[in-house]
Amino acid sequence: MIKIIGFDADDTLWHNENIFERAHEGYRLLLARHHPAIEVDRVLFTTEMRNLPLYGYGIKGFTLSCVEAAIELTQGQVSAQEIREIIATGREMLAHPVELLAGVADVLPALARDYRLLLITKGDLHHQERKVAASGLAAHFQAVEILSEKDGPAYERVLRRHGVALDEFVMVGNSLKSDILPVLELGGAGVHIPYHITWQHENVEAMPADQPRFRRIESLAELPAVLPSL
Amino acid sequence: MIKIIGFDADDTLWHNENIFERAHEGYRLLLARHHPAIEVDRVLFTTEMRNLPLYGYGIKGFTLSCVEAAIELTQGQVSAQEIREIIATGREMLAHPVELLAGVADVLPALARDYRLLLITKGDLHHQERKVAASGLAAHFQAVEILSEKDGPAYERVLRRHGVALDEFVMVGNSLKSDILPVLELGGAGVHIPYHITWQHENVEAMPADQPRFRRIESLAELPAVLPSL
Repeated sequence: MIKIIGFDADDTLWHNENIFERAHEGYRLLLARHHPAIEVDRVLFTTEMRNLPLYGYGIKGFTLSCVEAAIELTQGQVSAQEIREIIATGREMLAHPVELLAGVADVLPALARDYRLLLITKGDLHHQERKVAASGLAAHFQAVEILSEKDGPAYERVLRRHGVALDEFVMVGNSLKSDILPVLELGGAGVHIPYHITWQHENVEAMPADQPRFRRIESLAELPAVLPSL
Repeated sequence: MIKIIGFDADDTLWHNENIFERAHEGYRLLLARHHPAIEVDRVLFTTEMRNLPLYGYGIKGFTLSCVEAAIELTQGQVSAQEIREIIATGREMLAHPVELLAGVADVLPALARDYRLLLITKGDLHHQERKVAASGLAAHFQAVEILSEKDGPAYERVLRRHGVALDEFVMVGNSLKSDILPVLELGGAGVHIPYHITWQHENVEAMPADQPRFRRIESLAELPAVLPSL
């Protein structure tokens, strides 16, 4: 019986990937006279993946990769003014208001009455803390855990720290790779709520099969109804 | 009687500010034909402080501020090749090996036998975790706490989480502002070990006066001798 719910934050409680998508659109436009969009996307993604071990997740690393890829894509012809625009876009992304997903503002307080809620997110510590504070949701969570990676060992550490038994735990999130698969593997439950955009890095090939403790729902409003069956 | 020791990491256990200092020297050289060093330093520091609320601490934010300030200082004349160099310097800083300060490798294991040790550092989550792992010191610490800011409320949260009583706690670090003053104010003890460079942002005017639970030492090797008197 579920007693503790872990929530992912970006694209589960509030919009995030749409902010990146808008930045990508601006970036493609900026470089449109040099390369078709597909080539811009390819070089930027390659640059991001090469830098990920050093930069980790988050908008600052994304912005640095955008500058680096723009220099490469233009063979050094990108102007200082264009680089200034890329950096300004990064700042706008960091300053973007937190927009809750539909249903979150109603469902979360209701769940907090019957369950212990944990926020378990990854990425930039400073930015994630600012978003949690701006969301107005912090009071519903018993703890907020900001991790540099969300894999099996990281979930184990967090659940041990909070004395959470896996048969009482469900993780809710939009990423099969970061929110669902590692928790199912440990023996916990997982509820997948897809967001309409998934970052290429978070894509996984297959849905979990034959997993009695896995559900997929369309929106957070459906969560209370599926919890008793997990 | 002290039972728990909190250690700052950057410039307390391993070198950090010297890496920034070397980056500053390269940055001044890069811009030397445009401005004298003092003007380069002034504009870069102003840019960093303006961006700090959005970027937080760490090398990625520093690098973005370096690019932005270079565009401003050259009135847009900085070349893509020069910006590529700035970004490469940022990557080298992030990849720089962890160099322990003198005495750390001997003193820390000895202290870990008699005291509970906590690592309490601020900055970039991903980079700080990588440095802790690379330092070879992680096993000596009961917990590693990476915070976005080290002020009174942040220390209170950490000490509460670990069940630490303030009369049994001493914080050891190179920054009066981040390591010593907030802990003294809460009622804990503080041992200041100055590093030979202090980032301008961490400067404070005055040393704590009339504080029976404050000591200043020259190196970590002196720490075991002062602990019984705190």
